[in-house]
Amino acid sequence: MRFVELIRKKRNGDRLEKKHLQALVDAYTEGRLPDYQMAAFLMAVYFQSMESSELAAWTEAMLFSGQVLDLSGIDGAKVDKHSTGGVGDKVSLILAPLAAAAGLKVPMISGRGLGHTGGTLDKLESIPGFDVRQPVERFKELVDTLGIGLIGQTDEIAPADKKLYALRDVTATVECIPLIASSIMSKKLAEGIDSLVLDVKVGSGAFMKNIETARRLAQTMIDIGATMDRPVRALITDMDQPLGLTVGNSLEVIESIETLRGDGPDDLTEVTVELVCEMLDVAEGVSDREATKERLRGLLEDGSAMEIFAQCIEAQGGDPEVCSDPTRLPEAPHRVEFNARDAGFIESIDAEQVGIAAMELGAGRRTKEDSIDHAVGLVFHKKRGDEVTASDPILTIHYRDEASLSLAKERLRDAIVVGDEPGETPPLILDRLQ
Amino acid sequence: MRFVELIRKKRNGDRLEKKHLQALVDAYTEGRLPDYQMAAFLMAVYFQSMESSELAAWTEAMLFSGQVLDLSGIDGAKVDKHSTGGVGDKVSLILAPLAAAAGLKVPMISGRGLGHTGGTLDKLESIPGFDVRQPVERFKELVDTLGIGLIGQTDEIAPADKKLYALRDVTATVECIPLIASSIMSKKLAEGIDSLVLDVKVGSGAFMKNIETARRLAQTMIDIGATMDRPVRALITDMDQPLGLTVGNSLEVIESIETLRGDGPDDLTEVTVELVCEMLDVAEGVSDREATKERLRGLLEDGSAMEIFAQCIEAQGGDPEVCSDPTRLPEAPHRVEFNARDAGFIESIDAEQVGIAAMELGAGRRTKEDSIDHAVGLVFHKKRGDEVTASDPILTIHYRDEASLSLAKERLRDAIVVGDEPGETPPLILDRLQ
Repeated sequence: MRFVELIRKKRNGDRLEKKHLQALVDAYTEGRLPDYQMAAFLMAVYFQSMESSELAAWTEAMLFSGQVLDLSGIDGAKVDKHSTGGVGDKVSLILAPLAAAAGLKVPMISGRGLGHTGGTLDKLESIPGFDVRQPVERFKELVDTLGIGLIGQTDEIAPADKKLYALRDVTATVECIPLIASSIMSKKLAEGIDSLVLDVKVGSGAFMKNIETARRLAQTMIDIGATMDRPVRALITDMDQPLGLTVGNSLEVIESIETLRGDGPDDLTEVTVELVCEMLDVAEGVSDREATKERLRGLLEDGSAMEIFAQCIEAQGGDPEVCSDPTRLPEAPHRVEFNARDAGFIESIDAEQVGIAAMELGAGRRTKEDSIDHAVGLVFHKKRGDEVTASDPILTIHYRDEASLSLAKERLRDAIVVGDEPGETPPLILDRLQ
Repeated sequence: MRFVELIRKKRNGDRLEKKHLQALVDAYTEGRLPDYQMAAFLMAVYFQSMESSELAAWTEAMLFSGQVLDLSGIDGAKVDKHSTGGVGDKVSLILAPLAAAAGLKVPMISGRGLGHTGGTLDKLESIPGFDVRQPVERFKELVDTLGIGLIGQTDEIAPADKKLYALRDVTATVECIPLIASSIMSKKLAEGIDSLVLDVKVGSGAFMKNIETARRLAQTMIDIGATMDRPVRALITDMDQPLGLTVGNSLEVIESIETLRGDGPDDLTEVTVELVCEMLDVAEGVSDREATKERLRGLLEDGSAMEIFAQCIEAQGGDPEVCSDPTRLPEAPHRVEFNARDAGFIESIDAEQVGIAAMELGAGRRTKEDSIDHAVGLVFHKKRGDEVTASDPILTIHYRDEASLSLAKERLRDAIVVGDEPGETPPLILDRLQ
């Protein structure tokens, strides 16, 4: 069948056969299907979606467009977590060592930040010497011996997704649940994991702005996992305000270290512990969730998780001393407090605007080609619901130059709303799907 | 605004501004907007359509992407007719000289056939020597002096449409009313006409398979014309069976000459006279339609229209003697009758299948690159509703080789259905819109 006929079928809402979806992905990856035909196809998918069987075939084709890691030689349950991205979301840095301390193997392949959202690789790279590019054999060895490896996507993993994502980015076909779900799942399943936990963020700082679409995305990924015999769980978590107290790469590493020590902010600790509990449940079953969470908090407090993080840093070429002496991380030359103008209660902290403020400071990328400044960022002293008096510092801005500071301040002024009432704080964990 | 934002707006169903639509067309024509972004945009238009103001801006941008003829120096009403294409549709060859004989100026720029539908240029080129490529100045002179000029589209006319059409063809975005309407209107308005009459064909042999979509297409083009101060009329006409008795290029020229002499088949004469009457009405107003049609029939019978056709042929390098001696046209080496298998009444003649049969003989193109055989084709002796006895010849096949004959016969066997009842013959003119 000619490709234009496949586009027409999808356009008309007909179901495509597995072999045809496979042919589309293969031809595109190999350059036999031109960008303009794939662009038309993706837009047709935006409007007509994909049925569960189509999506399974599409994801599988993307998954097998490149290397799929074989971790079958490694003992233990191989489980990863994927977050749909947010502001101040440093969960992976704490979660991976904590899960390893709890006995899981976490082969984590992460991405970089773009726009208002941060990326795990950028955070890790603020640790002097840390190298996110490890050969596959070395990565497997790290997962086997330490329980974790923290690397970036290689060209060999899901090349179809890489090419498709670049095309979606310029053809307004990013915001499409089946395409998002297949993109994430093809990359994650290429890690060779047995099961997966999703942290689907919802709110102003998240890709999903409302809980219904977040649930649909989560369910779509769970369904894809089911067709491939990979159990997937999802937590829907709040991203209306930033997670934790810091936004910016080395500042988030510092906060992660504090959390690994058991001294982290409540929201960050809670989300991380919940997600690891879910990883344990999906991998081996958890009979008593409260007891499990208690045990996990213990693994933070007794230094077990921190020890694994330090070993991982060292194994990947970084300076493990940052764990005990965070001043070894890059520091911004200037700091200034950002104060409340009126007394009252913090009603909202728009996570997206905060993310953009951090990007303006240099902590994030406007375009994929931008470089980032690991040192700059924001440290909050107050969060939603907290009381402030006039000229109380709400946060401290770590900055490099006045120009970026003034742009960031402008964003922050609009981002933070102080009202008369403490207001209602929504729960952090909004839903749990499996 | 970035192009991806314009794609996103259209995808979301938002109305685009005139300047942005203009920017899209201009950038695409100049090669600054890549095919893949335009492909995504076109698919978004397929699903979200375009509002009347958007479509006017889009059409205008395509129209002014190239040369727009200035016929203001020519006296008289400049009017053209456009048909959405069918099988056996040789109306233009009769209509243009008839309209000129009635006092109108007809600057007709036509296309070639593709698939099961024929094209005016191919029919004209079966006249020995006839050259459809005339320089613009010469074309204007022909319209001025003879009242007609019959040429093909040049690269200078609506280049945006040319490029867009090629892209639509390979991205399953052809079947989209706003895109069809803007494509036709941009090319037709580039002729410098004052007004236009549309022959929107509906039925198995037409692009529009039902009257509702035919009406929508007609109304869309009428609306575009209105925004540009170019009155447009439309007739919806039947294309469930072929028009007239012939299908194939030189055979259709012969039938056109017969019709210009007043001896044509009723359906062909009726549609042509109705369309010219409409052209006169839109151009200068017709108070008594019946009297006008009577006058037009007179212009066929007294040889006035034929005289103009002969002059046009001569002026464009062709052999005008074909008008009195059709044997000067290419003739196929072989003829064979195609007989009825059963006695009864012809219930239906599937125009699309007949068109494909003619294509199999070589009268049409499977792809744009194919060459065509002007001599071959079909001559019907019976049409829908006619009585046949077993082994009565329904049509004569003019063919070049046995292989193509057998393919054509196969199509014809399925195309012609003989039943027990004469059945109801739908009217030829199904609707009239303005």
